[in-house]
Amino acid sequence: MSNRRPETDLHQTLSDVIQLLDRNRVLQELAHRQDTPNRDVVERLQQRQNLVEVQRRIATLHPADLAFVLESLPRDDRSTLWEQIEPAEAAEALVEAEPTVREALISVTGRRRLQRIISHLDLDDLAWIADDVPEDILREVRASLADTDRQLLEQSIAYPEHSVGELMTREIWTGRESQTVSELLADLRVRGALPEHADGIFVVDGRNVLKGVAPTRALLLARPDAKIDTLMETDPLAFKPEDQAEEAAKAFERYDLLTAPVINERGKLIGQLTVDAVMDFIREAADAEALAMAGLRGGEDLFAPISASARNRTPWLFVNLLTAFVATRFIGLFESTIQDMVALATLMPIVASVGGNTGNQTVALVIRGLAFDQVTRDSIPHLIRKELLVSLSNGVIWGSLVGLGALALYGQWVLGLVMTGAVVINLVVAAAAGVAVPLALERLGRDPAQGSSVLVTFITDSTGFLAFLGLARLFL
Amino acid sequence: MSNRRPETDLHQTLSDVIQLLDRNRVLQELAHRQDTPNRDVVERLQQRQNLVEVQRRIATLHPADLAFVLESLPRDDRSTLWEQIEPAEAAEALVEAEPTVREALISVTGRRRLQRIISHLDLDDLAWIADDVPEDILREVRASLADTDRQLLEQSIAYPEHSVGELMTREIWTGRESQTVSELLADLRVRGALPEHADGIFVVDGRNVLKGVAPTRALLLARPDAKIDTLMETDPLAFKPEDQAEEAAKAFERYDLLTAPVINERGKLIGQLTVDAVMDFIREAADAEALAMAGLRGGEDLFAPISASARNRTPWLFVNLLTAFVATRFIGLFESTIQDMVALATLMPIVASVGGNTGNQTVALVIRGLAFDQVTRDSIPHLIRKELLVSLSNGVIWGSLVGLGALALYGQWVLGLVMTGAVVINLVVAAAAGVAVPLALERLGRDPAQGSSVLVTFITDSTGFLAFLGLARLFL
Repeated sequence: MSNRRPETDLHQTLSDVIQLLDRNRVLQELAHRQDTPNRDVVERLQQRQNLVEVQRRIATLHPADLAFVLESLPRDDRSTLWEQIEPAEAAEALVEAEPTVREALISVTGRRRLQRIISHLDLDDLAWIADDVPEDILREVRASLADTDRQLLEQSIAYPEHSVGELMTREIWTGRESQTVSELLADLRVRGALPEHADGIFVVDGRNVLKGVAPTRALLLARPDAKIDTLMETDPLAFKPEDQAEEAAKAFERYDLLTAPVINERGKLIGQLTVDAVMDFIREAADAEALAMAGLRGGEDLFAPISASARNRTPWLFVNLLTAFVATRFIGLFESTIQDMVALATLMPIVASVGGNTGNQTVALVIRGLAFDQVTRDSIPHLIRKELLVSLSNGVIWGSLVGLGALALYGQWVLGLVMTGAVVINLVVAAAAGVAVPLALERLGRDPAQGSSVLVTFITDSTGFLAFLGLARLFL
Repeated sequence: MSNRRPETDLHQTLSDVIQLLDRNRVLQELAHRQDTPNRDVVERLQQRQNLVEVQRRIATLHPADLAFVLESLPRDDRSTLWEQIEPAEAAEALVEAEPTVREALISVTGRRRLQRIISHLDLDDLAWIADDVPEDILREVRASLADTDRQLLEQSIAYPEHSVGELMTREIWTGRESQTVSELLADLRVRGALPEHADGIFVVDGRNVLKGVAPTRALLLARPDAKIDTLMETDPLAFKPEDQAEEAAKAFERYDLLTAPVINERGKLIGQLTVDAVMDFIREAADAEALAMAGLRGGEDLFAPISASARNRTPWLFVNLLTAFVATRFIGLFESTIQDMVALATLMPIVASVGGNTGNQTVALVIRGLAFDQVTRDSIPHLIRKELLVSLSNGVIWGSLVGLGALALYGQWVLGLVMTGAVVINLVVAAAAGVAVPLALERLGRDPAQGSSVLVTFITDSTGFLAFLGLARLFL
């Protein structure tokens, strides 16, 4: 426990490591430039010494902190540091690192070293990172396992992404209803230390069917001869491995759970979910959603190679380009109108922009409501009514302001009124689209965070151009 | 524990409640329209019966689920349901509800009922919701407390928002180093049940200075005559009440903590942080960030009154309007160029839009890196170089595509090249702004999630218009 450290310590370590590795890079560059052999020896010694110093700095780090340092290093430094880490520590850091960084680390690791690192992983951790391990190495590992272990590994790997099965651990401590507290404790002592997050012992019958949970805190204060069935909770919330991790996460948050049993369709206990895995899942899901809303396809290593980054950003950039082309075709319909009054060209982006902004505010609220299950079929009409009224009132207020601005700039009353009208129309459309688009994507079984924003912006851009230029042609 | 239920049950309950309340609303409207007295009586009976049914449905709900149902109801229904809830349950639901909904509930509660509800809260919970309780009622509650309790309450309320002090609870179970396990357990039995999240007993000396933590799991398996100091962890990660909740949350995630002691500047134990409070904080922070990035000032009740919603969205709408006006002024500089070739007006929004999209992708990555502390002074140059190269390569690829599109539409080579050049320039500026703006906001001590997007869009809009129209004037 003593290697858990306050944030500031960790930042100091990170900064030290970066500086030591930077110094080495400079030394290496110098060595390349000159060929005085003696100097070269001195510099190599210096480099070696710097690396030893780096090793000293990271030696006492918690695996999670080591993963953090690796994640925060630019790619070259990351590789250099990675090579300095002992296989056992490297294995733990690999489990803790974020997926994109884990992938990058594995790709720069030699085959022999990777085998040694992987040999330090237990089954749960191996299943967890299996997706990123090269197929041939995974096959060797599989071959080296006992039959039951191999079966368990196959099963674990087979659980779909974001399922309870993927997050659960198979490490479980069990007891029997008919035992007394002292019998149960004697059993547990034989197994050795309890895991850190055990807030209860799962109680099963002879066929391993889950009967209840005996809370650790109750066991602690119970009389030794008390029967387990008198102090267990008989109706714990249990999950199935194929349940969605998202649903389990909500239950953990709502009911403040620390652990929950995972059972199969016949009620047999096969594993448990713990709050630390659930917390990681929540953080990653929130993170992925924020990135998706900005039009990034997946998580991206902050120091990913250029080509990988460019690829990650391509799909939505392409969609954006297409929609922008289509939306601006509406402007093309009014070229003669613009020819008559070029001021229109300077004002039309304002109408589009205000609409996009409003639409995306609504999108953010609706996506959040969907994530928390607060948007139900019964409440959608209320929601639409509210959003339309909000945007109508905002439209009148801000539209008038914009109209006054246009009047001030170009001195034409009618132009101001056209501007106001277009803003009101676009804000109302923006609100409707902001509710409808994420709901439609959700109904189609897609992630509303991914794409809602681009689609709504497309709608508000098109509407903004059409409404403004159309009104202008009618009234100017 | 038996009132924890799977998600689907809960949605059924919510749907039932909404339908029952809807039916009542219809009955009420009918009653207004006709004045046949007998019918009125029947309908009132029916209404009463519906409400009884609603009460039955919510009677067994966990407080967190009750809060969820309240959050998911449109405002009228919410008030009706709220009035049906017993003060004790109402108190718990109030603690669990999200701040905006809590505020709304309190505002519709009569003074007498609110007093009764608040009388059911313990000190920690009272401090937690104190901000939303009307000043005069809070004064009365304060006056009714014993001196020590009042002092504790004042202290708790005084901790700044998002501090460890705000999240911590004062409920702590302590022991002494010199005790044996059986002595400690005897002490604990006198106090009654341990709290659900106790994964350790805090060990203090005679002056209440924290000495260590004795893990529950170690106590459970220890021999009764073992000394506490032989099994306690002596160097637990402890927080101060004035520490930022964000830092504590990161430590909980990183080290998979369940509880952590909170000590004052003299090392005395004054409370503890538990993982459930930390999880709520993480969810709320992620949530607030997603909303902030969409330009919403704060959390917003999905069914907030129109005026409150309009106000919540006003500040960023206003900023957006201002920046849009300024950005489009750059178009104004080129009115004669547009007059010569109206096609420019249809193409310029594409350049602006692609830039905005790219810039905001970079912003999302940088904000995430800042949130995880992965962006350090030493790594910023690497990050900028990478983002510039990514956007340069994307600029060349997508710029060429856009140029070909323009060529296809208008049949002019030079126009296509101008378009390509403008896109390249704008994407490079977008990358630079996408890194620089959030970093600058962070350096200024502001939340980079709030405002980065608007500022970057302003920069890319302006650059897009300027680069495209400027190049067009030069070469066309």
